[in-house]
Amino acid sequence: MSQDTIAPLQVPARSIPVPTTVSPEMQALIGAPRRPGWNTIPTTPEAWHALAEAGRAVAGPNNRAMAERLGVTITPATLDGVRIFHVTPAQVAPGNENRLLIQIHGGCYVLNPGEAGLGEAILIAGLGGFRVIAVDYRMPPEAYYPGALDDAMTVWKSIAARHDPRNCAWIGTSAGGALVLAMGLRAKRDSLPMPGAIASGTPMSDITKTGDTFHTNAMVDTVLVSTDGFCDAAARFYANGHDLADPMLSPVYGDMAGFPPVILTSGTRDLLLSNTVRVHRNLRRLGITADLHVYEGQSHAHYGRDERIPETREAFGEIAAFFGAHLGK
Amino acid sequence: MSQDTIAPLQVPARSIPVPTTVSPEMQALIGAPRRPGWNTIPTTPEAWHALAEAGRAVAGPNNRAMAERLGVTITPATLDGVRIFHVTPAQVAPGNENRLLIQIHGGCYVLNPGEAGLGEAILIAGLGGFRVIAVDYRMPPEAYYPGALDDAMTVWKSIAARHDPRNCAWIGTSAGGALVLAMGLRAKRDSLPMPGAIASGTPMSDITKTGDTFHTNAMVDTVLVSTDGFCDAAARFYANGHDLADPMLSPVYGDMAGFPPVILTSGTRDLLLSNTVRVHRNLRRLGITADLHVYEGQSHAHYGRDERIPETREAFGEIAAFFGAHLGK
Repeated sequence: MSQDTIAPLQVPARSIPVPTTVSPEMQALIGAPRRPGWNTIPTTPEAWHALAEAGRAVAGPNNRAMAERLGVTITPATLDGVRIFHVTPAQVAPGNENRLLIQIHGGCYVLNPGEAGLGEAILIAGLGGFRVIAVDYRMPPEAYYPGALDDAMTVWKSIAARHDPRNCAWIGTSAGGALVLAMGLRAKRDSLPMPGAIASGTPMSDITKTGDTFHTNAMVDTVLVSTDGFCDAAARFYANGHDLADPMLSPVYGDMAGFPPVILTSGTRDLLLSNTVRVHRNLRRLGITADLHVYEGQSHAHYGRDERIPETREAFGEIAAFFGAHLGK
Repeated sequence: MSQDTIAPLQVPARSIPVPTTVSPEMQALIGAPRRPGWNTIPTTPEAWHALAEAGRAVAGPNNRAMAERLGVTITPATLDGVRIFHVTPAQVAPGNENRLLIQIHGGCYVLNPGEAGLGEAILIAGLGGFRVIAVDYRMPPEAYYPGALDDAMTVWKSIAARHDPRNCAWIGTSAGGALVLAMGLRAKRDSLPMPGAIASGTPMSDITKTGDTFHTNAMVDTVLVSTDGFCDAAARFYANGHDLADPMLSPVYGDMAGFPPVILTSGTRDLLLSNTVRVHRNLRRLGITADLHVYEGQSHAHYGRDERIPETREAFGEIAAFFGAHLGK
């Protein structure tokens, strides 16, 4: 029997309560309605841009407020022509003096421009005491594939020339989680050094709609909701006709031999749980140190929302500890 | 807002294909119909016993055939009055000469008597080259809670008196995955030593029907299917009126401080994925080394079925490597 001949599993409609096994703060997040507009897909470049700007108007101020609460400073700059932010904690934690992180934001390759993309950088700076350079990569319609990856690699090439790469780590979630994996593949291709560690959160590691939790967690994940939503459409908009199975777009299909230690984060309701655990398995089959953390009840990237949520502090504590264990080795 | 006041998530009926992201052998297993009789619950002790015997008639010969293929020898014995099996590989792997594993079988506390319970012992002996003592603990109606735990602890007490505990590991799946965690709690209570490592596969760590994937993976997991099935009923039959939230029955509620390194295994479709990741989080919050492995598309304990399935070899390779890294330390 092959996959084509095995009958699909018929699963009846269900009513799923908010879990009691997470903090009250996370219960409120999990219990929120499905993301408004998850299945409203822009049809023009202008409409995609407008969607990104609408998101920026909410996420930018939220991130600035979070940075203020955490004592994190945000300074815009450019590096070899690429827009970046220096995201700096009030106090660099002991042991992190010579360490530098590069954050690649998520948002389906089209969302979270500017400060809207800084959530994860602020969290790891403020909670982990790391200096961070956040890459505000070009997004469509400004630039299509491989614009985001090119910008990230430009930043890495510049930093790796000035810092010991073993003291650097890459961190990204969702599209950013895929980009930090594609950066590893690209570093191999371009004979650039690897960083000392990579944190890939719920990566869009496969944008060909392949992966079991695309089905099992469809309509269960309240953030991405379904591969029929805007996020997969956004990835195709970014790909701009390029083969979606190219490992530079779907890094789960890439050869990750030679990667440094990787920490992977997901949730039990995450539409991309499969795309996270498939990367974990690929790395482990290669004998690479790879730690998997799956959080109870969380949908896509719920873990990185707000430092006032205990599970966010927990997840970024894990990432900080992982960097502490592996950087400089 | 509290959990009581947040509306449940309404998820429509779905048709879920067999994943293409696993081996053909695993596709066949995932594509099999839901376990026959998953919601047929015996109502008398005699009927529970008959169910266990019916399962034994299938699983016993299957396990003997697997042992033969792997060159593993099975020898029944007793240890301080407890029924055990010595499960011995043809060749003890280099480095494992002084190591000894104790296997506690699964089966919802009522199934898999005798050789029917040896699958995991045979796999780790044959694939990992470890000597194993498998505990054929008493089950209801022969003995109710805490009979299984008492038998397991009798064996541990005897072995720990003769072997360096740091060279020993405990391994169990499902009810066995819960029992190896409860053994850690009991060892603390009784001032017995800890082993060098614990492998807890998809543990029934919470039999109070609490855990998010009891809802999200209901009817998706083809093995346990639902908390309305016979497995939860079997656990209550074993508990025999005892508080189901007692950590000795639901070890997720226990204090695991002082535990040795733990490896946890589950699958994305596993009804007990939450009960696995909740234990992982508890251990990590205590700073304990705890590795999580979640396999694509797998329902409850799919990973431990048959050594001819590549994902079974992969999962037991991970467990063997974990023991290799942590025993004797």
